Amino acid sequence: MHTLGEVAEFLQAELRGDSNYVITGIAPLEKAGEDQISFFGKVEGFVQTSRQYLTATKASAVILTVKDAEDYFGNAILVEDPYVSYAKLTSLFNNAPKIKPGIHATAVIGKNVSIGEGTIIEAGCVVSDGVKIGDNCHLYPNVTTYHNVQIGNRAIIHSGAVIGADGFGMANDKGKWCKIYQLASVQIGDDVEIGANTCIDRGALEDTIIEDGVKLDNQIQIAHHVKIGAHTVIAGCTGIAGSTTIGKHCMIGGAVNINGHINITDQVIITGASTIERSITEPGIYSSALEVQPHQKWLRTKVLLLQLANIVKRLRKLEEQQNE
Amino acid sequence: MHTLGEVAEFLQAELRGDSNYVITGIAPLEKAGEDQISFFGKVEGFVQTSRQYLTATKASAVILTVKDAEDYFGNAILVEDPYVSYAKLTSLFNNAPKIKPGIHATAVIGKNVSIGEGTIIEAGCVVSDGVKIGDNCHLYPNVTTYHNVQIGNRAIIHSGAVIGADGFGMANDKGKWCKIYQLASVQIGDDVEIGANTCIDRGALEDTIIEDGVKLDNQIQIAHHVKIGAHTVIAGCTGIAGSTTIGKHCMIGGAVNINGHINITDQVIITGASTIERSITEPGIYSSALEVQPHQKWLRTKVLLLQLANIVKRLRKLEEQQNE
Amino acid sequence: MHTLGEVAEFLQAELRGDSNYVITGIAPLEKAGEDQISFFGKVEGFVQTSRQYLTATKASAVILTVKDAEDYFGNAILVEDPYVSYAKLTSLFNNAPKIKPGIHATAVIGKNVSIGEGTIIEAGCVVSDGVKIGDNCHLYPNVTTYHNVQIGNRAIIHSGAVIGADGFGMANDKGKWCKIYQLASVQIGDDVEIGANTCIDRGALEDTIIEDGVKLDNQIQIAHHVKIGAHTVIAGCTGIAGSTTIGKHCMIGGAVNINGHINITDQVIITGASTIERSITEPGIYSSALEVQPHQKWLRTKVLLLQLANIVKRLRKLEEQQNE
Repeated sequence: MHTLGEVAEFLQAELRGDSNYVITGIAPLEKAGEDQISFFGKVEGFVQTSRQYLTATKASAVILTVKDAEDYFGNAILVEDPYVSYAKLTSLFNNAPKIKPGIHATAVIGKNVSIGEGTIIEAGCVVSDGVKIGDNCHLYPNVTTYHNVQIGNRAIIHSGAVIGADGFGMANDKGKWCKIYQLASVQIGDDVEIGANTCIDRGALEDTIIEDGVKLDNQIQIAHHVKIGAHTVIAGCTGIAGSTTIGKHCMIGGAVNINGHINITDQVIITGASTIERSITEPGIYSSALEVQPHQKWLRTKVLLLQLANIVKRLRKLEEQQNE
Repeated sequence: MHTLGEVAEFLQAELRGDSNYVITGIAPLEKAGEDQISFFGKVEGFVQTSRQYLTATKASAVILTVKDAEDYFGNAILVEDPYVSYAKLTSLFNNAPKIKPGIHATAVIGKNVSIGEGTIIEAGCVVSDGVKIGDNCHLYPNVTTYHNVQIGNRAIIHSGAVIGADGFGMANDKGKWCKIYQLASVQIGDDVEIGANTCIDRGALEDTIIEDGVKLDNQIQIAHHVKIGAHTVIAGCTGIAGSTTIGKHCMIGGAVNINGHINITDQVIITGASTIERSITEPGIYSSALEVQPHQKWLRTKVLLLQLANIVKRLRKLEEQQNE
Repeated sequence: MHTLGEVAEFLQAELRGDSNYVITGIAPLEKAGEDQISFFGKVEGFVQTSRQYLTATKASAVILTVKDAEDYFGNAILVEDPYVSYAKLTSLFNNAPKIKPGIHATAVIGKNVSIGEGTIIEAGCVVSDGVKIGDNCHLYPNVTTYHNVQIGNRAIIHSGAVIGADGFGMANDKGKWCKIYQLASVQIGDDVEIGANTCIDRGALEDTIIEDGVKLDNQIQIAHHVKIGAHTVIAGCTGIAGSTTIGKHCMIGGAVNINGHINITDQVIITGASTIERSITEPGIYSSALEVQPHQKWLRTKVLLLQLANIVKRLRKLEEQQNE
């Protein structure tokens, strides 16, 4: 519980209204009750953008821009970017149990491990020999980091994540597969978040690198010797094959499949469920996912798709006849 | 080992044959030996439907309908739905080790946790502060549940599943990502099964909800504030993005990708590897997956697909010439 | 650190050059320093194949074929297949901590478990009742094996893998799902590697089988009663539905979706992100993945794809008019 005055001070924003009003939580405009604060404006990831939600809200205070506040007469917190201010405010209302820095009794720490100040290693985590973890990190329960992995400051690593397992390398020796031991490691920068059950493999000869500020969702697979540029975000279930480089400030959707040994430049957006087979050299938005159709219709479309060569042939024949 | 009389009684079904005959297990018709029971009829998920399997089987007893039993002269268990009866019978022959209800010595249980009667928490599980788990649940080894998650009765949660990790939320603050703390939780109803390494994220402002009777396969990713309606089943590797609502009694195939902020109505069937970008308002079967072709043929098809605009243009030109 | 003489002896290969030269590690040609060895030639998974890398390298020694060594005047290790020799050499330079065979104090081992000589079970692993694990296996931290799973010799199983969880089976009993207990198990042959967070489910009535020499990458989902033939390799994020059989010596790319109840013959190559709905009876390369386009272009292509039936209709009409 915080007063609107505290909220405004926390956000370093101007309050227009009752600074003593007590707020118990945050809610979307259309669901907020009288003791809650909401936000209006640039709301990525939320469907609501219509002004009518603002008019109708029961929220006792709204975070919004000066311009949007002109016709709004409730308690208002005036900010430049309401969505960013909302994001910041969630940390004030964070109700997660406070865990003291340190290593849980059931975690297993190898030899020559370095763990920074303020870092939390929860139950069941296994941190193998030679791992370096920076300050103020949080490893949730059952995270595994293989030997020599390096993690920067303020990393958040969710349960089940596996950092530094062997990259998938082998050579075919007359029908049998000979393992390529993965001699390099994984380097993770500062302010990186890694989702539950996400895997980041160690490199064979060169490290896998996750630069500062990268945010990875759950169940992402990052193969050996991949490099992900600073402040790139990747949604769940995406897989990136070996030795691919992804630029800075990219946004990669969920369930995207990215080929190995390619380069994706900075500021590329890939929409969900797309496949990238070749390098992308220009910033922009890229897509390749199909979209469901009623099953019978889709079956017909699939058949016709495979007849495209024939369609083009027939078209050419008609054109030739036309021009005779 | 059970006699046919015991089997019939367990299934509350009529036995036509030798009630003292001893059965050691269940097998498909074409592979069953003389001490095994099989089933014939409505056999979803099995290829066999041909009567010849019934004629040729060495099984000493068959579960089937009265109608199908007319021309079958072996021991018969007469039921309405043979596949459902087979399903029920598997619990009688379940050979899994019996584990006493309770919490394994290596599991870690937080503060203010409530665990119901008959519930099993296996080795390596971590149940964080404030979690509520109902009666007769089974958490297999190495399951993680974050704080305040609520789980109903008779849940089965397989190894590596992570319930209640942070949803993937952040706001872009001048190029850097500001974390949106995920203040809500996960609510799971009764009779839910959750597969190995499946993730269900907690909500930012509103709970993620899994209703009664939902069955989730392995390696499914359920993002924050998703709602899955009662008795819906979802196969492995499917991902569902944030704030999407899925109806009741849906059947969603494996490796399906479902966009965020959409609604899928009740009784929708999505075939495997499909992508759903928009809401589905009508029950029915929906698909969008392509199917492999020999590689060289597929390469040509892909090129031609991208020339569709040109094909349509040429077609229109021909039509205009024709109509001149 | 090894001398070139030791390297040549380890590879049972001819050395042309200074046998006392000391090598500290392995690196790609274009990145190698003066104390490193590299390789040139058949380099699957590496982009470099150009002779200019060989000419320009600073590596103090190169593994290559007699033929390729003709015009190369540095230290040379002469081999038949440089990539295989490189693979073998990685084991000589393997810097992973040596772990003594045995069971970590935090691992949990059930009743009637058999574990072979030389096998390592790391921290947090849970090996349930009746499991058999062969000689010289390595279970990395936090692996879970359910009851009665059988694993051959020299298996490498990475963290978070779950072997033997219940297959996803259920029968619809008037709108509610009745669980089919999974009475069979998982059999894994010799020399199998299983990636991080990969799942292999137990069978309902018949075992799931992974034959000798199979290599599975991370986050693969293998459903109940699947059979994977010897020496087949499968890349990350691929899912295989129930009761499908895959042949020997197949190579299956990442993020591939394989339907249930089908057969894929030996020596089939599936490229990444493909979908296989039907059996494949001929060896060869198969594909079905689309490739990203700029978003606006792709949107138009998607719309036109769904108009194929109309395009064909218009084409036929033109053909009929032509032939009148």
